[in-house]
Amino acid sequence: MIVLGIDPGTARLGYGVIDTAGREPALIDYGIAETHPTDSMPDRLLQIYGNIRLLLNDHDPDVMAVEKLFFARNVTTAIAVGQARGVVLLAAAERGIPVREYSPSEVKHAIVGYGKADKAQIQEMVRIILGLDHIPRPDDAADALAIAVCDAHMTSGYGAFIS
Amino acid sequence: MIVLGIDPGTARLGYGVIDTAGREPALIDYGIAETHPTDSMPDRLLQIYGNIRLLLNDHDPDVMAVEKLFFARNVTTAIAVGQARGVVLLAAAERGIPVREYSPSEVKHAIVGYGKADKAQIQEMVRIILGLDHIPRPDDAADALAIAVCDAHMTSGYGAFIS
Repeated sequence: MIVLGIDPGTARLGYGVIDTAGREPALIDYGIAETHPTDSMPDRLLQIYGNIRLLLNDHDPDVMAVEKLFFARNVTTAIAVGQARGVVLLAAAERGIPVREYSPSEVKHAIVGYGKADKAQIQEMVRIILGLDHIPRPDDAADALAIAVCDAHMTSGYGAFIS
Repeated sequence: MIVLGIDPGTARLGYGVIDTAGREPALIDYGIAETHPTDSMPDRLLQIYGNIRLLLNDHDPDVMAVEKLFFARNVTTAIAVGQARGVVLLAAAERGIPVREYSPSEVKHAIVGYGKADKAQIQEMVRIILGLDHIPRPDDAADALAIAVCDAHMTSGYGAFIS
């Protein structure tokens, strides 16, 4: 099963793609897609939508995993994240693939076994689970990979990654 | 000039279409598009996107007018409104029409001449400006028409609707 993890944002969207067919989840791809603040918001959303459609075409994932957001600095920030999230979910629905959502504490719990783990611990565990030499950068891509690995843990029959 | 006003929401989206070619803005269409809470969020966003595309095809507007949101009950609500807003703005960008955003107080000021007017005053003024027998219903459709009339006032060279 191919899992596409997405960390949505207007300025910078992180993505991570893993394959859960083997004994351990395997990295396929990760990165970020950026838009420029000088472009209008509708144009930036069009760029995000285009980037997600390219990712869906390139990797043909079976599922999309996205973080649930419960906290934002203010309503304006929450609206902006929501707008990016909206076009991401739309692209998944058009393609007919399920979207699974995980809270930050679910992601932490699935990966480190502890709901209050910090970002560095999550990133190091994702590195170990995927057998990488380096922690993936930037943070938005690492976060998206963590969400994909969380989905693998929750649904693909992997046991605890650490025991 | 044809103006499409949108009051975005996940459960219920209001729309109002007016023509600003004459001496006074004229009503073309208004209504709501609803989605069902039992459908998944991605499917509901796909329905909203489909409805907006139908409106854009049917009325071929020159501009879309949308309310700026500064307040929401909580982050979850703001994210949900943002998601609906995202697919609405995307549809406008795909069609290449500009999106103009107005704050609630700009809408009130443009229509009633007073930034703290209440909803009933706005609705009654929209009824008079558009020469209607009845106040448009439901509220989401009336709000969308108010946003379209606000845009007409701000950009189409109409003077104050009341003096």
